Amino acid sequence: MAKYVIGIDYGTLSARALLLHADDGKEIAISEFVYPHAVMSEKDISGKPEKPTTALQHPQDYLDALSFTVKDVLKKSGVSANDVCGIGIDFTSCTVLPTDINGVPLCFYDRFKEKENAYVKLWKHHGANDQAERMTEIAKQTKQGWLEDYGGKVSSEWLFPKLFETAECSPTVYDSTALFLEAGDWLTYILTGNLVRSSCMAGFKALWSADGGYPSQDYLEKVNPIFKTALQKVKGRVLPVCEKAGELNDKGALLTGLNNGTVVAVPVIDAHVALPSAGVTDDGGLLIIMGTSACHIVLSEKDKKIKGICGKVKDGVAKGYFAYEAGQAGFGDILDWFINNWVTQEYFEQAKNQGVNIFDYLNQKASLLAMGKNSVLVLDWWNGNRTPYADYSLSGAVFGLNLKTKPEEIYYAIITALAYGTKRIIQTYENSGVAVNTVTASGGIAVKNHFFMQVFADVLGKEISVVDSKQAGAKGSAIYASVASGLFPSLKESAKVLGDKCYKKVVPNLENTKLYDKQYDRYVEISEFFASKKLQ
Amino acid sequence: MAKYVIGIDYGTLSARALLLHADDGKEIAISEFVYPHAVMSEKDISGKPEKPTTALQHPQDYLDALSFTVKDVLKKSGVSANDVCGIGIDFTSCTVLPTDINGVPLCFYDRFKEKENAYVKLWKHHGANDQAERMTEIAKQTKQGWLEDYGGKVSSEWLFPKLFETAECSPTVYDSTALFLEAGDWLTYILTGNLVRSSCMAGFKALWSADGGYPSQDYLEKVNPIFKTALQKVKGRVLPVCEKAGELNDKGALLTGLNNGTVVAVPVIDAHVALPSAGVTDDGGLLIIMGTSACHIVLSEKDKKIKGICGKVKDGVAKGYFAYEAGQAGFGDILDWFINNWVTQEYFEQAKNQGVNIFDYLNQKASLLAMGKNSVLVLDWWNGNRTPYADYSLSGAVFGLNLKTKPEEIYYAIITALAYGTKRIIQTYENSGVAVNTVTASGGIAVKNHFFMQVFADVLGKEISVVDSKQAGAKGSAIYASVASGLFPSLKESAKVLGDKCYKKVVPNLENTKLYDKQYDRYVEISEFFASKKLQ
Repeated sequence: MAKYVIGIDYGTLSARALLLHADDGKEIAISEFVYPHAVMSEKDISGKPEKPTTALQHPQDYLDALSFTVKDVLKKSGVSANDVCGIGIDFTSCTVLPTDINGVPLCFYDRFKEKENAYVKLWKHHGANDQAERMTEIAKQTKQGWLEDYGGKVSSEWLFPKLFETAECSPTVYDSTALFLEAGDWLTYILTGNLVRSSCMAGFKALWSADGGYPSQDYLEKVNPIFKTALQKVKGRVLPVCEKAGELNDKGALLTGLNNGTVVAVPVIDAHVALPSAGVTDDGGLLIIMGTSACHIVLSEKDKKIKGICGKVKDGVAKGYFAYEAGQAGFGDILDWFINNWVTQEYFEQAKNQGVNIFDYLNQKASLLAMGKNSVLVLDWWNGNRTPYADYSLSGAVFGLNLKTKPEEIYYAIITALAYGTKRIIQTYENSGVAVNTVTASGGIAVKNHFFMQVFADVLGKEISVVDSKQAGAKGSAIYASVASGLFPSLKESAKVLGDKCYKKVVPNLENTKLYDKQYDRYVEISEFFASKKLQ
Repeated sequence: MAKYVIGIDYGTLSARALLLHADDGKEIAISEFVYPHAVMSEKDISGKPEKPTTALQHPQDYLDALSFTVKDVLKKSGVSANDVCGIGIDFTSCTVLPTDINGVPLCFYDRFKEKENAYVKLWKHHGANDQAERMTEIAKQTKQGWLEDYGGKVSSEWLFPKLFETAECSPTVYDSTALFLEAGDWLTYILTGNLVRSSCMAGFKALWSADGGYPSQDYLEKVNPIFKTALQKVKGRVLPVCEKAGELNDKGALLTGLNNGTVVAVPVIDAHVALPSAGVTDDGGLLIIMGTSACHIVLSEKDKKIKGICGKVKDGVAKGYFAYEAGQAGFGDILDWFINNWVTQEYFEQAKNQGVNIFDYLNQKASLLAMGKNSVLVLDWWNGNRTPYADYSLSGAVFGLNLKTKPEEIYYAIITALAYGTKRIIQTYENSGVAVNTVTASGGIAVKNHFFMQVFADVLGKEISVVDSKQAGAKGSAIYASVASGLFPSLKESAKVLGDKCYKKVVPNLENTKLYDKQYDRYVEISEFFASKKLQ
C-alpha cells in the first residue's frame, strides 16, 4: 500500500501544500492559495491612518488555505485520504495571534473586529520596538542568562514584544487574550485539539529554552507590572520538532478532507524546515539560506555560548541537536542596491547588446579581474551587522578606491565581503567550539550565480553543496510529517530519501583562498575598529 | 607717459603673453602661441618605443612663443616698446633642460638630437621614480634636515631626480651638461645674459633654501658616486622673486621686439604667480587653487616646520614671507570619477529633461538634503593623501552606506570630504603656528559650482573670496614685472592695482559649521586610523 505525506508551507502572502510519495520523495501534487486579505494595516481594520511598522494578517486566510490546498492536492493526485499518513506545517515566525481559550481568534468576535491588536501580527510587524528595547535594557540590568543566547538583544519581531505591544496599546484585547499563539501552533490546536507549542518557534522566537523555560515572572514584571499575566497566555506544552503534535480530530478532518486520526507533526519555522529539505541533518551541518538577507543555521551536539547569534535552540531543528542560527542582515539586497544606485548606463547598455542580464554581464567583467587581489574592500553592513556584533547602527563601507576603480571591482568586492561575512560567522561558530563540517547553500543567488558561489567557496576554503529546491518549505514540512508518523526512524533517514539531492558542488581553488585569507584579516581588523568605535 | 608691463605665462601646451596697463591693470592685449612640438616621447626623438612616464618638450618652442606673443601684443595694442617697463615670466615647474655653458640647449646640437635626455623634461615627466625613491631613502637614513620641509619625500618630478635620470641613463648627455636649468631660468639667461635662478623654483623644486642652499655634495654622492658633479650643474645665483633678474640684452631685445635695457623679473612657478594675481599678498593669506588636484599656498612671516607639506620657501612668492605649499592629491578628478563610475542613467536622463548639466542636477538634489547631517562619510584619498600624510598608498573610502543611500548623498559626501581635507590642511598650518587669516579660492570649480563653495565655507567656518581670472598666470607675471621694474614699491601695492578683484564672497552658515565640526572629528579619527595602520 502506497504511503503519502503532505507538507504545508505558510509564507508571507500565500500557502503551498505538497503531496509527497513517502517511498521515494516523488512530488505528486502541489497547490497554492493566495491569502485574500494579504498584509493589512490600520486602514484596513479601523480606518485609522496606517503606520509603516504595521503588518497584520487575517487568520481566516490560514484556515481557507489549509482547506483549499490539502483538498486540492488530494483531488489533483487522486490519492486517497486513507493513504496519507501525516501532515506537517511550517510557518513564517514569529507570526502570532491572540485567541480565547478554545483557540478562537479574538478578531473573529464582533467586538474586536476593529481592533488591530486582535489580528495576526506578521513576522515583519515592527510595532513593538519600544517594548523590545525595554526588554533588552532590563535584561541587561538584571543580567538575564538567556540574553546572550539571543545575541544580546531582544528583537521587536519576537513573541513577547508583540504581546506587550498589545498589553500597552490595547488593554481590552490583552485582557481578553487567553492564549497568544504562533500561527503554526494555533493551526495545530485547531486541527488536533492539543495545545502544544513548537520547540523551534518557542526557542527561536519566545526566549524559551528546554532548561530554563520562558523568562521569569519577576523579570517580566520589571519590564512593566502589567505583564504579570503574560506567562499564563503562553501556556501549552513545548514539544520537540519531529514529534507528533497530535492527530486530526473531527474538526481537523472536516477542514482538510483527511481522515480523523491522521498524524499532525509539531510545526517548524519556514526557514528551519529548509535544513532537512536540503539534506542537512548531521552534527556540524551548516545551511546558508541566501536571500535578501542570509541565515546560517548549524546543527551541533554541543551546547555553547556564542556571541552575536540570533538564537540557539535544543531540538530546534533536529531532535538531539542544538540548532544555532546566525545571520547577515544584508545580502542579496546589497547587490540590488548596487545595481540600482551605482552601476552606470554604459554597463546596462553593453549587457543589453550582448543579450545578457546585468548580473551575468558584471560576472563576466569581474571574472577577468585577478581573483583575491582586489584593492577594493567592502564592509557588508548596509543593513547593520547581525553576527557577531548584533549592531544595527553599523553601516556599509567601501575602501581602497582610486581614480581607476571600475564598477566591476566594487561588485566583486561586495561579493567578497558577503563571503567574508559568512566566513566570520563560521569562525564565530568554530571558535566557540561548534564545528562546521559541511556547507550547504540554498536560495536564488546560490543556484543562479556561479561566479558568486565560486568566490564563496574560494573565500571559505570549503566545498559548498548547492541545493535547488523550488519547494524547500513544503518538502521540509512533509519530511517532519514522515518522521512524526513513524515512516522513518529519524530526520536524517527521512531527509536522505525525501530531501533534495545536491544540485552542484562548488570546489574551492585553494590558491585563491590563501590570497583571500590576507584580505580577510584586514576585513576583520577594520570590522573590529568600526564595531568598537561606532565611527559610522 | 603711459607705462606698461608684459606677463608671459608658459603652460603645458602653449604660452600666453598679456600686455597690462600699469596704472590701472587694464588688459590691453593678449596673444597665445601653441607649441608646435607639443609633448614628445621617445618615438618622436629616437623612434624607440615610448614609455608612459616620458613627457619631453623642445626648447625652440619656448623661444618662438616668446618672440611671437610679445611682438604680437605690441602690434595688436599699438603700444610702443619704449613704454614697456618690464616683462615677467611664469613657467610650469619643474620643467628642466640641459645646456652648454652659454645656455645653448644640448638638443640643438646634432650629436644630441636623438638623445631624449638632451631635451626639456616637462613637469609631468615621471621617468625618475627610481632616482627619487633612492634620494628619499638616503635622505631618511642620513637624516637630512631639509626632508621634512618637503613632506618627507622627494618627488620624481623635481630637479635632482630628473638630472640623475640623465646621469644614469645617458652619461654622455650628463657629462656634456654644463647647466641644468629650469626653463624659466633658461629664458632669463638667454634674455639677459645673467645666470640667475628663481628662489621660487629652486626652493620648491630643487631642495634649495636660503639658509641651507642645495643638498650637500656628501649626500648626493651617497645616492650615487657619479652625482658628485651635480652641484656644478646647478650653479647660478638664486634671487628672490619680485627682484630684477636683469635687463634685456641685444639678443633679448631682438627676440622680443622690446628695447635693450627693459627689466626682466625673476621668473616664478605658474601656480605661484596666482597669489598676487588673486590679491593674496599678506601674512596669513591662503590661496586654494582648485583643479583636478588642489594646491594650498599660504604666506607667513613665520618659519615653522610643518608635517606633510609640499614645500616651504623663503621669498618663494613674496619677498619677506615664507611661502608654504600643501595640497590635496585628488580634487576635481574625484568628482569626475564619481560622475563616470557611479552616477546612474536615471540621473543623467533627469538632468537632460531639465536641460541642466549633471553637476547642476546633482547640486539641486544635494541641496535638498539636510546640510551637515549626511550619514555618508568619505575619505578623499582616491589619489593618495598629500597633506598631512604624504602617503600615496592611501586610497579613497566611503562609509555609512545603507539600502536607502542615494547617489546625491555620495556626491554631497565627496564634496564635504574635499572640504574636510582642506580644513585639515588649514589646521595643519595653524597647529604649526602658521596663521590662516583669509581664504581665497580660484579655479573652475570655485567659480562655477556655488553649492560646492557654500559647503566649503560652511565646513571651514570661514568666508571665502572667489576670484575668476581667465589669465591668472600672465597677469601674475606682469605684476612681478611691475615690482621688479620699480613701478610699485611692493607686490602688495602692485596686486592691489593690477590684481583680480573678488568675484564673489561666500559667507559661511555657522549653524551648519557646528554640525560639520562633529563629522569632521570623525573624519580625522578615521583618517588617523587608516593612515597609521595602512589598512587600505
